[in-house]
Amino acid sequence: MKLYTAPATPFGRTVEIVVHELGLKEAVEVVATPVKPTEPNKGFQAIAPLRRIPALRLDDGTVLVDSAVISEFLAVHARDTGLFAHDRPERFTVLSDYAMARGMCECAVSTRYEEAVRPQEKRWPAWSEDMMDKVDGGLAYFEASSLPEDGRLTIAKISLGALLGYLDFRFAHKDWRRAYPKLAAWFAVMNERPSFAATAPRG
Amino acid sequence: MKLYTAPATPFGRTVEIVVHELGLKEAVEVVATPVKPTEPNKGFQAIAPLRRIPALRLDDGTVLVDSAVISEFLAVHARDTGLFAHDRPERFTVLSDYAMARGMCECAVSTRYEEAVRPQEKRWPAWSEDMMDKVDGGLAYFEASSLPEDGRLTIAKISLGALLGYLDFRFAHKDWRRAYPKLAAWFAVMNERPSFAATAPRG
Repeated sequence: MKLYTAPATPFGRTVEIVVHELGLKEAVEVVATPVKPTEPNKGFQAIAPLRRIPALRLDDGTVLVDSAVISEFLAVHARDTGLFAHDRPERFTVLSDYAMARGMCECAVSTRYEEAVRPQEKRWPAWSEDMMDKVDGGLAYFEASSLPEDGRLTIAKISLGALLGYLDFRFAHKDWRRAYPKLAAWFAVMNERPSFAATAPRG
Repeated sequence: MKLYTAPATPFGRTVEIVVHELGLKEAVEVVATPVKPTEPNKGFQAIAPLRRIPALRLDDGTVLVDSAVISEFLAVHARDTGLFAHDRPERFTVLSDYAMARGMCECAVSTRYEEAVRPQEKRWPAWSEDMMDKVDGGLAYFEASSLPEDGRLTIAKISLGALLGYLDFRFAHKDWRRAYPKLAAWFAVMNERPSFAATAPRG
């Protein structure tokens, strides 16, 4: 299988962490695929019609898009039922928490585009503030939730870890650890997993 | 159950169509929930930390976020295995197509925000062009795919229908039917389903 992704995206990183955690490193070849808004990567469009990373090309040529779809496919492929809580009653809570963490990644990436990609005179501070306020809404939710205390590894935790790593990478000035000490303690442990160490975001 | 949504969002509409198709109208109360970027709906944040619609509050107080998570929850709740192809080998193709349609909705909504919500002097035409080029990439993909010929109703088709309805609603000047005649013929039939007629987007 070929995984099209890039070193800075929290969505692609989530999939890469899943690959590590499921022991699929030998089965998945990572193909470096730079994408940037307003600079269409037309070669990649032949593989992924929306030119979005990550995308996974299976050995039979089928292409799957979207980090959540790819992650669940890999879990089923590896016969793992833990990450997506396939057989547990809390399955939809895990999926909803995962969607929340993914939504936070979307808001953080949107802020990054606003503040670093968009021409300076066209930036709208109210947009960035609103997006980062949503990220904070999510952080406060997870700080107050039982997720950091539950010992099981789930896709929600992987995605939340990728979000926190992305905040450190792109928003180093945001002192989220002070406001969310439970998350900070949890992430300190999570971030030492080999799957996290091997996939640290880089620019 | 309470479904927090608004009449214009293609994401919320997808869930409303699912509610209709699964015969759950009596079980799901729709709560009108206006959201607009840069105008935080703080009351709603107590329910959905990211202030994003749709959100579903279950009778036991659990809140699920994200249209894909909510739709799959409702399908499982109604013991439906068709919409998400739960027992079919093409499950992940359906999920990937659904993610593609959802991604197209995201690009179309992002264009709408760029062109109608952002202050005029801060608009960046290259952003809108890039987003609508991605929508076109997706339309070309579905035009060439077998999806419009497959008689089964899936969540991918519902989401694609919601996207096309959103294009008609917000981008009436975009003559997508001429470029994608197979999709146009397919949507003409799809759009007559009672579930579509009852949930037509309104501003």
